[in-house]
Amino acid sequence: MSAQTQARARELAARGAQELTEFVSIPSVSALDRHKADVGRAAEWLAARMRRAGIGDVELLATGGNPVVYGAVGPRSAPTVLVYGHYDVQPVDPESEWQTSPFAPTIRDGRLFGRGSSDDKGPIVCALAGIEALLATAPPDDVRLVFLFEGEEEIGSPSLPAFLHRERERFRSDLVISADGGMWRVSEPSLNVSSKGMCAVQVDVETAPSDLHSGRHGGAVPNALHCLAQVLAGLHDDTGRVAVPGFYDQVTTPTPAQRAEVAALPFREEDYRQEVGVDRLWGEPGYSTLERLWLRPTLDVVGMWGGFTQEGMKTIVPARAHAKISCRLVPDQDPEAIQRNLCAHLEASAPPGARVRATPIEGTARPYALPADYPPLLLAADVLERALGGTNLMVRMGGTLPAAELFQRELGAYTMFFSFSVADERYHAPNEFFRLDRIEPGALAWADLIARIGPTLRA
Amino acid sequence: MSAQTQARARELAARGAQELTEFVSIPSVSALDRHKADVGRAAEWLAARMRRAGIGDVELLATGGNPVVYGAVGPRSAPTVLVYGHYDVQPVDPESEWQTSPFAPTIRDGRLFGRGSSDDKGPIVCALAGIEALLATAPPDDVRLVFLFEGEEEIGSPSLPAFLHRERERFRSDLVISADGGMWRVSEPSLNVSSKGMCAVQVDVETAPSDLHSGRHGGAVPNALHCLAQVLAGLHDDTGRVAVPGFYDQVTTPTPAQRAEVAALPFREEDYRQEVGVDRLWGEPGYSTLERLWLRPTLDVVGMWGGFTQEGMKTIVPARAHAKISCRLVPDQDPEAIQRNLCAHLEASAPPGARVRATPIEGTARPYALPADYPPLLLAADVLERALGGTNLMVRMGGTLPAAELFQRELGAYTMFFSFSVADERYHAPNEFFRLDRIEPGALAWADLIARIGPTLRA
Repeated sequence: MSAQTQARARELAARGAQELTEFVSIPSVSALDRHKADVGRAAEWLAARMRRAGIGDVELLATGGNPVVYGAVGPRSAPTVLVYGHYDVQPVDPESEWQTSPFAPTIRDGRLFGRGSSDDKGPIVCALAGIEALLATAPPDDVRLVFLFEGEEEIGSPSLPAFLHRERERFRSDLVISADGGMWRVSEPSLNVSSKGMCAVQVDVETAPSDLHSGRHGGAVPNALHCLAQVLAGLHDDTGRVAVPGFYDQVTTPTPAQRAEVAALPFREEDYRQEVGVDRLWGEPGYSTLERLWLRPTLDVVGMWGGFTQEGMKTIVPARAHAKISCRLVPDQDPEAIQRNLCAHLEASAPPGARVRATPIEGTARPYALPADYPPLLLAADVLERALGGTNLMVRMGGTLPAAELFQRELGAYTMFFSFSVADERYHAPNEFFRLDRIEPGALAWADLIARIGPTLRA
Repeated sequence: MSAQTQARARELAARGAQELTEFVSIPSVSALDRHKADVGRAAEWLAARMRRAGIGDVELLATGGNPVVYGAVGPRSAPTVLVYGHYDVQPVDPESEWQTSPFAPTIRDGRLFGRGSSDDKGPIVCALAGIEALLATAPPDDVRLVFLFEGEEEIGSPSLPAFLHRERERFRSDLVISADGGMWRVSEPSLNVSSKGMCAVQVDVETAPSDLHSGRHGGAVPNALHCLAQVLAGLHDDTGRVAVPGFYDQVTTPTPAQRAEVAALPFREEDYRQEVGVDRLWGEPGYSTLERLWLRPTLDVVGMWGGFTQEGMKTIVPARAHAKISCRLVPDQDPEAIQRNLCAHLEASAPPGARVRATPIEGTARPYALPADYPPLLLAADVLERALGGTNLMVRMGGTLPAAELFQRELGAYTMFFSFSVADERYHAPNEFFRLDRIEPGALAWADLIARIGPTLRA
């Protein structure tokens, strides 16, 4: 990377905080219909930013759902890198726990607070600053870039598979570099080499045609909330192991080498416990916390509701209760099979007098892994060590990137996660933030990576 | 009761459907602040109706909460009957399950559908029609009537105790007749001789300072919903018996005579099961369904919520979960003691890693019972047999009338439930209704009861 490119990247990074403030101000919550127009505005904002970066052919492509923001630059004959990210964000609830309004970005102590600042708008700002710097100073002739920024990542990318299948020629590429993902910690650079799969299920319990007066019928008829509590309490055993029969059947047992690799990483369980702020850690026995997070499948109840939940009191025996459950999966678990099995288990565990219906929720993702000796991965490690200092760590991800498995299937390309957000930045939670001092190294790293990646894709 | 009184009662009853339509149209939901003005309108409507009935001194008395509608008629020297009822109603949710709008009363098959039609506005319309007929044709000189219609019954009458204590001279009476309560079934007349007590508790579970990303932390940290489900599932054992230690300690075991009395009533469990529409009955083993409803204490989870409960999916490990729990109590359970014991049990049953806080909800009620040989009760049975035909049944009530215990304490007077609603009229549930053909016998019975009650109060 030339001194000129570096200087330009620094200049552009200096505008990053202002840019990110604009981007985060747009409440592009894909899960809520009332934010439909905002999602569209975020796509338009991103398209304008890409055009300013010197990217060509920028346009919004219809997907049936929220649009994909597309662009391309570089010689058609060169190896192609697809740059991926998403401009949609998570819902903000519980909104009362935000110290400042989630869509009125606020900077405190060098951190920009706001929904989507870290997932995934800040990392996109880094990528575009770096790419603009490179295009403006030393446009590479050995790599072509195509861009795919989607607007449905936070709802499981429902439109992406059909869209990508239809558009597979346009997006044909040798490698996907994702601006989504995030580094393990702020103190050293890291690259994710695997991510978990996911599936989710909604469970609905019914015990009567409608709520009954608890004075008239309490103690004589089943209560849907009691029944749901029983079903949910039975999903784990007392030790924290998932108690759904067959759940672990297809799980690849971690090898001693994998376990040694994980054990060698600088991770103190007590530090982690304090950092997340819980009284004690929890989960499947027989594995370290990092092994549970990276190598073992998990099951969490994500939401639960039923009966009278407003102010005051209502004396009813509730007739209906509901919950949403999600599973994080590892090789070789098949998300659809796990989902089917979970639904069957839930329905079979209905207490007497309760009708339990379990329904798959759209948006499964397969578990995903990158070969340890993959040349672009080794280059990326070197780039990060130069940009951030320290030794790059190869880590794994408890999270899910449905897109990675999809790109593998549709494009035959691996996805490399190259994001400058950090795991502690409260993704999906109140008071999400992004560290503004990561914008400059982020921009420099993106410029350096794209400048040097061409040769690694020839093999 | 004279032929003239009867004729007048029939005339007034004929206007009952129109009157009830007006009254039910006012959404006097006491649990929700946004209906504050509507609650006031319902009080004004009722006061106007009472004045039209010939009741004197009608006014709205301030209570600190919603007003009491007061009135009085008859010689001050005569024995006094306090007529009680409530003009507030339950919330309507789940509103989507109403076939017609809850506050746009609709008549189908002789039933008036709407929130509050049966609990307690329909029965109040009956009482006032009967009393107006009697006052207009043969005003009694051997009984004085005072009226207390409150606007906070559905939220546990929080202002009534202090109000009644302050105003105990104004309301001094020998008997309370309640237009609240409701008959056991439509096919024969019945009088309630006991009602259950009540207490309620809110439980709040916290496992982390805020929700955590399930991809980052799932399987490593406690989940508030799992913890709450475990706590709630442990409130009953597998047989349906309440598993809170000490819950049954003060319960008076039903005598063989009481059990025989209950067993003699015309009640088929299978008919009841079909009527409420459940797949099977449920509850404490060792007792018949009617015994569970009338003679045994019960515990129900009334509402439960936490995590992501909107459309779509949010990948979190929820940090907080909540539930509301209510208990129906029998002699000699002390509601405050049961409430304290339940709170202590809930907090002690916190799973590792969860903080559980249990808070008493305002509005407890003591269990209540009327002597089997009480003269006004025997008169009321005769009145009902004349008005409705058939043999009057002495029944018990699973429901709670906090007011009855309060009147006993403050006024030293028994409360007799004399309501023309029926237990199947979906109190507190969607599609609540009142049978319009009960208005005429209701009005006749009130006129007859008041005409003949004076002598029974002299003893």
